[in-house]
Amino acid sequence: MKAKAVFYHAGCPVCVAAEQHVANALDPSRYDVEIVHLGEARSRVEEAEAAGVKSVPALVLDGAAFHINFGADISALK
Amino acid sequence: MKAKAVFYHAGCPVCVAAEQHVANALDPSRYDVEIVHLGEARSRVEEAEAAGVKSVPALVLDGAAFHINFGADISALK
Repeated sequence: MKAKAVFYHAGCPVCVAAEQHVANALDPSRYDVEIVHLGEARSRVEEAEAAGVKSVPALVLDGAAFHINFGADISALK
Repeated sequence: MKAKAVFYHAGCPVCVAAEQHVANALDPSRYDVEIVHLGEARSRVEEAEAAGVKSVPALVLDGAAFHINFGADISALK
């Protein structure tokens, strides 16, 4: 069974680069990658915070949050 | 041809988590991932800096540096 990976972003240039290079580089045979734009899906900010996301872009993999460079603080997305 | 990905770390707990979850999640059919411990291979600090790495753990993919969470500043490894 594939693991779920969620890539949270806010459409910023730093986010787009991380999505293109890191999120898209994950092994598709092992991970189902969901891309979530928190600026458009504000209802999911709470879910991201619960997973430990403090800034975007961030990748939640295996239940742990990995912040990739820095685009925006999650508080700016509320 | 596979692209080269270099994961730079310094053995810190934040680094180990990023290695286990992010570096190991990359698609092996598209990326050859090299793991470099900058604490043990100090001669490669300069190469990491040239690639834009400012802190570890970091992943250099397609020529761009992606800092994953924060373990240590690269200046601490010189």
